[in-house]
This record gives sequence, structure tokens and C-alpha cells, in this order.
Amino acid sequence: MPFRRLGRSGLRVPLFSLGGWLTYGGTVNGDPCKEIIKTAFENGINMFDTAEVYEKGKSELEMGRVLKELGYRRSDLVISTKIYWGPRGGPNDSGLSRKHIIEGTKESLVRLQMDYVDVIFAHRPDNSVPIEETVRAFNYVIEQGWAFYWGTSEWSAREIEEAWSVANRLGLIGPIAEQCQHHMLHRERPEKEYAALYRNYGISTTTWSSLASGLLTGKYNDGIPAGSRFDKNKDFFKTTLESLTKEEGLAKIAKVKDITVIANELGVSTAALALAWVAKSPNTGTVILGATSPEQVLENLKAIEVLPKLTPEILERIEKVLGNKPEPIATFSRPALDNDARW
Amino acid sequence: MPFRRLGRSGLRVPLFSLGGWLTYGGTVNGDPCKEIIKTAFENGINMFDTAEVYEKGKSELEMGRVLKELGYRRSDLVISTKIYWGPRGGPNDSGLSRKHIIEGTKESLVRLQMDYVDVIFAHRPDNSVPIEETVRAFNYVIEQGWAFYWGTSEWSAREIEEAWSVANRLGLIGPIAEQCQHHMLHRERPEKEYAALYRNYGISTTTWSSLASGLLTGKYNDGIPAGSRFDKNKDFFKTTLESLTKEEGLAKIAKVKDITVIANELGVSTAALALAWVAKSPNTGTVILGATSPEQVLENLKAIEVLPKLTPEILERIEKVLGNKPEPIATFSRPALDNDARW
Amino acid sequence: MPFRRLGRSGLRVPLFSLGGWLTYGGTVNGDPCKEIIKTAFENGINMFDTAEVYEKGKSELEMGRVLKELGYRRSDLVISTKIYWGPRGGPNDSGLSRKHIIEGTKESLVRLQMDYVDVIFAHRPDNSVPIEETVRAFNYVIEQGWAFYWGTSEWSAREIEEAWSVANRLGLIGPIAEQCQHHMLHRERPEKEYAALYRNYGISTTTWSSLASGLLTGKYNDGIPAGSRFDKNKDFFKTTLESLTKEEGLAKIAKVKDITVIANELGVSTAALALAWVAKSPNTGTVILGATSPEQVLENLKAIEVLPKLTPEILERIEKVLGNKPEPIATFSRPALDNDARW
Amino acid sequence: MPFRRLGRSGLRVPLFSLGGWLTYGGTVNGDPCKEIIKTAFENGINMFDTAEVYEKGKSELEMGRVLKELGYRRSDLVISTKIYWGPRGGPNDSGLSRKHIIEGTKESLVRLQMDYVDVIFAHRPDNSVPIEETVRAFNYVIEQGWAFYWGTSEWSAREIEEAWSVANRLGLIGPIAEQCQHHMLHRERPEKEYAALYRNYGISTTTWSSLASGLLTGKYNDGIPAGSRFDKNKDFFKTTLESLTKEEGLAKIAKVKDITVIANELGVSTAALALAWVAKSPNTGTVILGATSPEQVLENLKAIEVLPKLTPEILERIEKVLGNKPEPIATFSRPALDNDARW
Repeated sequence: MPFRRLGRSGLRVPLFSLGGWLTYGGTVNGDPCKEIIKTAFENGINMFDTAEVYEKGKSELEMGRVLKELGYRRSDLVISTKIYWGPRGGPNDSGLSRKHIIEGTKESLVRLQMDYVDVIFAHRPDNSVPIEETVRAFNYVIEQGWAFYWGTSEWSAREIEEAWSVANRLGLIGPIAEQCQHHMLHRERPEKEYAALYRNYGISTTTWSSLASGLLTGKYNDGIPAGSRFDKNKDFFKTTLESLTKEEGLAKIAKVKDITVIANELGVSTAALALAWVAKSPNTGTVILGATSPEQVLENLKAIEVLPKLTPEILERIEKVLGNKPEPIATFSRPALDNDARW
Repeated sequence: MPFRRLGRSGLRVPLFSLGGWLTYGGTVNGDPCKEIIKTAFENGINMFDTAEVYEKGKSELEMGRVLKELGYRRSDLVISTKIYWGPRGGPNDSGLSRKHIIEGTKESLVRLQMDYVDVIFAHRPDNSVPIEETVRAFNYVIEQGWAFYWGTSEWSAREIEEAWSVANRLGLIGPIAEQCQHHMLHRERPEKEYAALYRNYGISTTTWSSLASGLLTGKYNDGIPAGSRFDKNKDFFKTTLESLTKEEGLAKIAKVKDITVIANELGVSTAALALAWVAKSPNTGTVILGATSPEQVLENLKAIEVLPKLTPEILERIEKVLGNKPEPIATFSRPALDNDARW
Repeated sequence: MPFRRLGRSGLRVPLFSLGGWLTYGGTVNGDPCKEIIKTAFENGINMFDTAEVYEKGKSELEMGRVLKELGYRRSDLVISTKIYWGPRGGPNDSGLSRKHIIEGTKESLVRLQMDYVDVIFAHRPDNSVPIEETVRAFNYVIEQGWAFYWGTSEWSAREIEEAWSVANRLGLIGPIAEQCQHHMLHRERPEKEYAALYRNYGISTTTWSSLASGLLTGKYNDGIPAGSRFDKNKDFFKTTLESLTKEEGLAKIAKVKDITVIANELGVSTAALALAWVAKSPNTGTVILGATSPEQVLENLKAIEVLPKLTPEILERIEKVLGNKPEPIATFSRPALDNDARW
Repeated sequence: MPFRRLGRSGLRVPLFSLGGWLTYGGTVNGDPCKEIIKTAFENGINMFDTAEVYEKGKSELEMGRVLKELGYRRSDLVISTKIYWGPRGGPNDSGLSRKHIIEGTKESLVRLQMDYVDVIFAHRPDNSVPIEETVRAFNYVIEQGWAFYWGTSEWSAREIEEAWSVANRLGLIGPIAEQCQHHMLHRERPEKEYAALYRNYGISTTTWSSLASGLLTGKYNDGIPAGSRFDKNKDFFKTTLESLTKEEGLAKIAKVKDITVIANELGVSTAALALAWVAKSPNTGTVILGATSPEQVLENLKAIEVLPKLTPEILERIEKVLGNKPEPIATFSRPALDNDARW
């Protein structure tokens, strides 16, 4: 398993990690959950991501139970959770107030049966709270020893910039990573909007949905197979399913088919190619896998073997298929420089 | 129950909350106290305010006992207390020294049987202590996890400005709220003196005496009824009672009578109208009710239904009756601007 | 003429000002230029905006000449210019380096025959220069007495946030205004992307193209009339003209026709309604008019009389026609608050 | 001519610039000097470097005279000079005291007949003066408008780190470039010692002696030709000449011979290959040419055409010949990361 530093921090994270969104406490629990985590760990995945909101706390409960039963040494693990929507619905039970960040973190740790997580994320921005309060509260969490680092998830570049502004002004710790959607069909934010943040603060991404909810496995190339995730969760994926019948969705399917051709040529699965493509991005810290079975974990990890096959020529062919490479942020000054990328 | 953020913080407070000034440990305790809190909570009031000085600590003791017995989840509650006059009378037992703030807070938490309060207030300014010492001590309390936020009570605008100046210079947390008297007959400080603080620091008020010790219920319109609060606490309200026989006091009674006419027209009680009027102010965070029985809690909460009846026309009529709207702070520069209120 | 403060600064700017994009040095010069400025000034417009790039410096030259000949007192005027593209094309002749900001400002002042401008704008962002260098250079310009304030033009919210971060960290002066496109058909950036900046830093906009290059005058409702700006500048407006023949452009024309109906009902011109609508926005500092004749200045200024006609009902009808009101930035926390707009 | 930003600054410098070490005021003056500068400028070199010490001020005098006579626009030029050894020998006439930096800069500007230079360098470190005094003095020079940026020359990495530490602590401007020796036979400092400075502060180098005093032209491959620089300046190059007769020197000659073979294969001169090799380094801002005739300028500029020939394969062959690639700074932590170079 290749490892990367997360942001400019000294934390080493595996290039592929395991997320507990649909898995733990939800569709998968009890022994199957243990099998997934065990398989992941034995194949080099030592980072596990969850959130207080996943299955209303049950994801944390399951993950905590399983890791305890498996008896792994805590320092061999990298655990992240995310705070925003508390499992209950009180008026102070959500968002990024000092009250909820502190109360929520304490409750997450109880569910996880841990003294601390490695990284705690703000699961969304909260524009009803000054960012200063949020930055201070995450620093409090770190100073209490409840987390080593903090990050953001789906924040705008402006919001992350403001968080760093506050942190720098007050001599506090800023966010080291952004947990964002990043896949072949969703690139504008991670590849363009965040560009200045990679440069200014060295943040990494911890990417989710890197298979586009399964679309990039190619299994929906010819319709929605019975028993597939989309089939079993028709309500949850309603908007996605509807879009697949329209022009925009059909165009996506067409692209996935062309990517499948390249995957076949390389002798790899479409999913492994799609995952490796995200991992190849220099700003990706870890690609969070959403595998729901031990077999899927192993299948996804084949992406590691795809990495060396992503030559400049292959990447160029993929770009041509996708046709969605974000334009670089415009620079209006002259002349063109030969070291613009260096800064 | 409508909720508001307290100051610029992320803390959600109910527009009406319950105070324990005369109630807990004092005239009301034991089971009646529990009934009041239970009724309040079940009707949406999840914020309870007390102080170390109320009934020499008994108010905190009673509130702590009752909330524990009722078994509410801590994160569903918003608890505030106030530090200034410790229940005992030692030379270091009052004021805003580091020693008393820290020792007083610890003792309050013991009485409340809680790990922390949500907001801790400086119950008065202390001009015998540098404001820097006070700001630092409240930040210590917050960093210890004993409170999430701090506020002031009956501080002058200049004193709050200095607290913020110190907090900003030192990178510390400033006060988010000012607990002050605000009612139809007392407006200069909350509506004019604090104006720049609302703009500069976004502080909210947590108002007390919004019924002017009962005057604005209209029940003293025709004299002091036997068994009323003024009748039962003649010594405590001596100054108030004397004033009511003089020109200034009689003028107040006259105004309350005219307000009563408007209340009747709207089909609401004078008290509900008076409470709603304070709640309507954009800078009010929460109106602290001083109800002494479950029935009074319910009666006071009828103010919520009055809120939509406070149309610009009605507010204008109330202004005419009151005749005490503070002049805006003078601006001497020309010309008049059409966005002066915006800043 | 109504006046507003520009941002949180103390500078008073007229709600309508005059810009020199196509006017000075370009299509209009010599005496006609003097007539426009004279008419504007005599009707309350005392602010004139230009840029080093307009007509390669000739706009500044003309404006400087005319204002000198008219003999207005300097302190009665508010002059702004913009730095980015120097009139010549050397490698250090554009962008926001310290070198170009300082050299460019000095040359602009020579052309304007002035000791200082009131506001100097960065005409675009320059992502090839650290924002710290740019902030320092504009502060140098201010400290030299060459400008009283500085602003940005068409910067992203993240970039303005970073500029303020740098300014606050170094104790320097931040940008007070953003010169951006804002009109009925272009709202996302000024009304949504900048929302947090209005709140955090109180910046104002100085809007350009508030008639959408003339589209909102209604004169293109039935095609491109001979002699109109679009007709006379077919190359410059090529993209715009092409779009008007496609679905998106036709939809715009349809909206303008519906706005024209409302304007007719109010007894005002479509242009005046469109200008007043932008001016009505609380964050607008000044609407920069692009009038090319004294008559057009007078016609545009009728927008002042439209302002009181923009009742909540009319504004609501306009919203229905436009159908493009930006969604507020999502807040994911619960519950809804009744003072969310206050912060 | 390719242009690069100098350090993280917005200043554009040509990849090849002209230095006045031996040239101006020294071996070359009068009309020949004008011919060199004219040829350089007409071939894209708009940056000229000098120093107060070169020929005891005469280099600055000559360069100022010639540039004035040629009538170039100041903003089209990038001028740098260096302060350390004043032309006279008084006790306060050298080093990096506030007194000498300010007095020296003023005198340099008089000699150059300019209001400002673009970059002013500290020609050496001065360990007899606190770095804080030096940083403050260069900031004074910048705030006076006498320079836009400042840099260092032959400072150690630790000294540059301390300068940035002082600058950051005081909110002052730090050095953007380091003028250092960098050529195929001298790599340890620019390629290893400064590595963290490139990453932390983005400094560029402005390299001198990139032909190793002529050794890398290959002209000394077979001894010291009569009339060559070494031959005409035997005293000045005494140490160098002696070393060439010993083991270390002979090994250098052997390497140059092997480089000459590669140059021949590429169909370029050894000198052009050596210059292009330094220019290829991503941290090189500008390679300062020491040409002493118009012909040499043109010959040196052929390095631009060599740049695209420096493929990974050719660079690898050059490394094998040189055998002096600095070891990267050791990292003692495990495991190996795949993004170590990214930070």
C-alpha cells in the first residue's frame, strides 16, 4: 500500500482507505462488517472513516465494536470521523457551534470506544456560525487530545481560506484536509476551485464517491441491474436515477463506456481504473473506498496495480474521453511564464 | 418556540427562556420548582438562567437537582449562570478577579451538578479589577471546558468595548451577550448605548425584567393588589413603590394603561404584548421570563402568538404611547446617506 | 443625488457615477466628452471612474484634460482608476506585481494630471502574484498619498477573503469595494458569491454593465437597430450577438420584454428601472453609468425617481419575471432561526 | 526570451540576464559597453545586474550612463544592484548596517541616475550585524520607493531562514531571491542546502558564474589559451589556476571534456549546454551572463535553443558524467511516501 502525508501534516495515510457511509451499522453489520474491516486491514488499509450522522451513530458504534474485537493496536490505525448532524434533532444538536462540536465529539468517542480519533472533519460548512468559533472549537478538541488534526468536508474555497485566515491570525491550527467528492465526472471543485488552497496551505483531499456511486464501475452501462446499489436504494438515488434517463445522464454513461474500452485494453476493471485515476492526482491524500464486502475491497485495491499503467499517454486518452478538464483559473497578466506551475 | 443565535455565536437559544431569580431556592422550591421547569421544557423552553448570588446559591442547587431528576439530556439544554457575588462574604468572594471567577465557577458547577454551563456571565462590571484579568479568567474557564461562551451583565458600552479590545489584542474570546434590563419603560441603554456593540461585535441581549417587575402586566394599573409581588416584597421594591406615587411613576402607570388599550384591541394580555415587544427587537437573543408558576409560564409564552401581530402600524402606535424612543446617536457629517443603517 | 458610504469607509459616493470605458478617449472625445462630464457634474454625479487600460491610456488623458478645463475643485470630485493592463506590452507592464502597481499608478496620475485618485482598483485578480505582494503594494500607493482607498474588480470571493486575511495579519488596509458586473441578468456573483464578504468586511460594489451592454434598455427587444452600440461594435460584442440568436439569448430578450411591461406600467423607461433595481441592492455603493452623451446621462439619472417606486410588490413581480434569484448559500444546520439574516 | 517570476514575487525576469561584474567600468567601457547592452536588450535581455563594489562604483556609473543614452523606458527594464562593499573604505562604508544599506543605496541610485532599482541584494551576509537590523533597513529602502524587492547573495540557508523569521515576526518583506554560484561543478548549495528555502519561501536563484569562470566553455580543455580571461587575469584567478594543475582540477577538466562530447552530439556549444543546464533548474530565476562582447551575448543566448533538447535522457547522461548530484536531505521516518516531493 502506498502512503502519503495528509496535507502538510506528518500524518501518513494509505492511498486507499475505507469509509463507513452505507456499510457500518447500515446495510452491513455484525460479522460481515468485521470481515470487511479485517480484509481491508490485512491488505494494507489502516485508515477508517466514519461520521456521527452515518446511520444515526450506528456506523461509529459498529466500527468501534469491530476494531475492539479485532484487537488492533490503536497507533496502527488512522481513524477519522465527521461532526455536523448529531444523531438526535435538538436545536443545538447540529452545525459547527462550539457547543455541538464539543458535545458531538465527546459522544462520537463514546460510540467509537476510543480516547481520540486521528482526524476530525467538519462534515459541511455552517454559515450560521462565525468561522472563528468553529476554528477555536476544533482547536479545543485537539488540545483536549480528542483528535490530532482537523479538516473540512465540502467547504467552498472561500470558507477554507477564511478558516486559515482565522487560524493564522490567532496562532491556531488550520484544517489539513478537505473531504470532497472527486471522480472522473466531478472535477471542477477538487481540480480548480481548490487549486489556490493546495498552493497556499498544502491541503490534501480525502475523496469520496470516487466511483460516482457505482456509475464508474461500468455496471450501469447497460441499465440498472437488479440487486445493484441503485436498484436497492431507489429512493435515496432518485435524482441520480432520473438524470440517467436524460441527456446529461446518457452522456455520462457514454463516457463510462469509452473509459471501459481503455480499461479493457489495460487489462484492468473500469472501477480500478477510475479509482487509480483519482489516486494519481497529486493533491489526493486518500481515496475512501465504499466497499460493502471483502471481495469488493480486494477488487478495489487492484487500483494500486493500475497506478504505474497511468502513463502520460493513457492520461491524455482519458482526458479526451472525459472532455471535462477544468480550465485553469484565468490569469490576465502577460507574458506567459515558464514556471507558472511552480508557485 | 422560535430560536435565535446568541450574539454571533452558533449557540441556539429559545426566544423565551426561564430565569431563576425569585423562583428557584427562593419563593418556589421543591416540587413547585420542578413543575415550572417541566412545563417550560415541554413548551419549548430549553434555556435556564441562574446566578451564584440567587438565594445565596440555593437557586443553582434547586435547578441542578430538578434538571437531574427530570433526566433531560445535557446537550438538549442551554444553561447559564452568573458570577460576581459569591454566596459567602470573604474578601475574595466577590467581583471579577481571576481568583473569584475560577473559584466561583467551580462552586457553581458543583451546586448545579454539571460539568459545564453553556454561558457564564459577569453579573456586573468590576472597576476594581483590570478588564484584562477578567477577560483572561473567563477564557480560562472556557478552555477548561467549564463553559462554552461568556457574557456580561449590566456593563456599560465602554466597558464591553474595552473587553473586546483586550480580547482582540490577546487573541482571546470576547463576550457574546449582555444580560440587561429591557422593557417598554427602560430603553436608553439597550436601544442606544449598545447600538455600536450590536454592529461591531454582534452581541445579543438576554433581557430581564421585561415586564418591569410586573408593572407591564397592567396589574398595578389601579393600585397594588393584595398578594401581588410588590405587596409581598414591600422592602425589596421600596424605591419602586415610592416612585409610583410620584409624577414619574404616575406617568408610567398612564402609559401602561394606554398599552393595555392596544393589548385589548389585539385580544392579547398586556404582559404578552410587553414581552413580545422586547422579543421583537432584532438584538434580543432571549427574553428571560421570571414566571413563578407553571400557569404563568404558559401565560407568558402567549407572547409568541403576539409576535406576528406586531405590524409596523401597531409598533408605531406603541411608540406614540411610550414617547421614549431613544434618539439615534448623532452623526455630524453631511450629507444624509441612504445606507447609514447598513454598516 | 443620494449618497452612500463606499464599503465601511467614510468615503461618500453618489449612487450613480460615470464610467469612462467606451466614452473617454474612445468613441467620445474632445468637446463631446466635456459636455458629458459637465452635464453629469451639474446633475449631482461627482464620481468618475476610468482605468489605465481604457483606450490604452487615452481615457485617463481625456478625463484629466476635461476636469482640468472645467476647473472643478479636486475635493469635490471622487476619482477612481484601475490598474492591471498597462497601455504598453512589456513583460512587467501588466498584472499586480509591486513593480506594475507602483509604476502603473504613477503613470496614471501623470495622464490624469492629478496628485491622487480617491480609489484605485485592481482591475482583475492576478493568480501569478502572491496576494500579499499586491496588498502591500496598494498600501504603499495609499501611504504615498497617491490614493485614499483601494478595491478589487472581478475577483473571486476566495481571493478577496485572502486579501483581507493578509491585510488583517499585517495590519494593512484591505479592499473596500469590488467593481463587478451586476444587472438583472447577472446576479450569482454579486448576490450570492460575495454574500459573506458583505457580512465580514462590509465591502460595497461599484457596478458596471448594469444595463447588460444595453440589452436592458429594451432597445434590442426587436432586433439590433442600425447605429446602436451592438451594431457599431459587432466585433467586440461578437459573442453576445451570437448568443442572442440562441435559446439562452432569446430567453433573455423575453425577460427584458416582460420587464418593459412593468416599466411601462410604472411610467418609466426600461433602462431607468433596470438601473434603479441595481441601485436598490443594499450592497451597491455606486452604479457606474456608461452614458455616451449628455442626453443619456439625464435619461439614466431618471433611475433616481424610480427608486421610491420599487415597492416590495414591484420587486416581487420583477423576481417572478427574472426567475434567477440566487439560492442563498446552503446552511445544513437545524433549526431554522428567525435572525439568520442579522449576522 | 522565456520569462520567469523571481521567487514568489510578481516580478518577471528574463531567463538570461546580463551582469556587470567584469564588464562595465572594468575591461569594457565607453562605446563597447553600450554595444553589449544594446545587443542584449534587442535580443530580449531586459535585466541588468550590477553592484556598488564592481569596479568601485564605475560599473553602476557606466550602466546608468549607457541606459540613459539608449533611452529605454524605465518600466521596461529590470535593474538590480548589490550593497555590501562601498567604493570607499571608511569604517561604516561596508557591511549590512542600517547606515551603510541606506547610504549605500542612495549613492548607487545617484551613480545609476535612477529613482529606484527593481531588486537590491545584500552582496554577502554580515555576521557582525543582527539580521533584524538588516531586514528592517532593506524594508526601509523598499518603503522609500528606492527598490521594489530585496534579495541575498551567498548567504547560508540558516541566514536566509533567520531573515524570513525576522520578516514574518515583524510583518516585513523578506528576501525573494538569492544570487549564488551555480554551475555543473558547483551544486551542493543551490541544489541541496537551499532546498527547504525553495519550498518554504519560494525563493529563486539569480545565478552567477554558470560557466565556472569559463571552464565550462571547454576552452580550457587543453590548457590556458593566450588572451583568455584566465590568462589576462592571472592574479585574480590564481587559486583557480593552481587547482587546475592538481587532481581535483584535472578531474573537473575531464568532466568538461565528457560534457563537450554530449554538446557536440547535440550540435550545440559546450557553453550553451552548461548555461541551459542551469536555466533548466526549476528554482533558477535568471542566469546572469558575464558576456564581455556583443558576440558573446549572442553566443550565450543560444542556450535558449538548447533548453528543449534537455530531455530526461540527456539530463541523465549529464548526471552520469558529473557524478556530483547532491544526496537529498535525509528523512529518517518510514515508510517511503509517494508524495514527499510535493510539499
